[in-house]
Amino acid sequence: MARAVVLDVDGTLMDTNYLHVEAWARAFDRVGYRVPRARVHRQIGKGSDKLVPEFIPDDEAAAAEADRLHGEIFMEMQEYALPLPGAKELIASLSERGCGVWFVTSAKPEELEKYLRLLETEGRLSGIVNSADVENSKPAPDIFELALERAEVSPEETVAVGDAVWDVQAAHAAGIRTVAVLTGGAFSARELEEAGAAEVYEDCAALLRAGFPG
Amino acid sequence: MARAVVLDVDGTLMDTNYLHVEAWARAFDRVGYRVPRARVHRQIGKGSDKLVPEFIPDDEAAAAEADRLHGEIFMEMQEYALPLPGAKELIASLSERGCGVWFVTSAKPEELEKYLRLLETEGRLSGIVNSADVENSKPAPDIFELALERAEVSPEETVAVGDAVWDVQAAHAAGIRTVAVLTGGAFSARELEEAGAAEVYEDCAALLRAGFPG
Repeated sequence: MARAVVLDVDGTLMDTNYLHVEAWARAFDRVGYRVPRARVHRQIGKGSDKLVPEFIPDDEAAAAEADRLHGEIFMEMQEYALPLPGAKELIASLSERGCGVWFVTSAKPEELEKYLRLLETEGRLSGIVNSADVENSKPAPDIFELALERAEVSPEETVAVGDAVWDVQAAHAAGIRTVAVLTGGAFSARELEEAGAAEVYEDCAALLRAGFPG
Repeated sequence: MARAVVLDVDGTLMDTNYLHVEAWARAFDRVGYRVPRARVHRQIGKGSDKLVPEFIPDDEAAAAEADRLHGEIFMEMQEYALPLPGAKELIASLSERGCGVWFVTSAKPEELEKYLRLLETEGRLSGIVNSADVENSKPAPDIFELALERAEVSPEETVAVGDAVWDVQAAHAAGIRTVAVLTGGAFSARELEEAGAAEVYEDCAALLRAGFPG
């Protein structure tokens, strides 16, 4: 079995991608940029420093205000953030089997605190690497490389799980085998495979039933 | 040019699919059925009589309550419903060129009233066929067949536009050529083509630029 599993949080463990889409869409609209939600959806999972310029390329003041508004609106929506099927069970199972469980995420501290409680991670998590800890956000490999470094494992001893092509690309660039789940909702199985996912599952529950991480 | 164009509304002309996903997810959760939003998303566009049993198969009271709650929550979210890029322009352009513009939709009267205003349909719309007017909702062909009947056109003189495989399947079953847009967010271009879409565009703006309906 892998010595460490590196898990993306939003869209993989927590059903939060759609809340982020809605928060970004409202934020963009309020600063004068009307963006279809489906287009926002496909950018979720990138760092916000890379997501915002996709829609507001040349207006720093509007970009900063949209970022602030997204945070504010998302905070109001957070009560609707729920764990995805099998997320809790996956974390518990990996931990019981002696596999290091790492989170890589762009979530803010107050969001994370809630997610850790909902996912019942107490005593089960080896560590968290936040995008704020690295220079280049996903799809750059930095966040996964820092997880390897902190976990003191090689890429070959590690498996990553994510829901977006950005996760797959980032983990792949760090040399880590990646399994994808469809719970993020923006990408088809074929798109995730084409980005480099070794396997694609409906959700963490299906992944666990299939004997992950092998 | 086609004599009539039959347009789906939610996800095709209006950026409302994600609002419906959120309203259904909250409604299901409140009646004790926790469903990942990505799974709800892929059912949007079916009639609610077909969507609800996908998640609540054997509990009529809970299903009815979820349906009611979805309506209530969606009403609160409606202020965030916005027209998609090119939607207004497409309607105006078709009407100016003498092509009959028909809506097929499951939207409720109070939703539709707002959408008609936002889409500036006044004097431009030939008619609306609502799912309430037919026995079998999408993906059954009934709603498209009734549009043909009311418009007094043959399937060969008609083109349909939709965002979900359910639109494509329904129009196809009615013998109508269908063009798909990606603004619904749940299906990839490949999935829409595999369902029978003749062409797939980013949004109505792209479709109009490409010279639709040919």
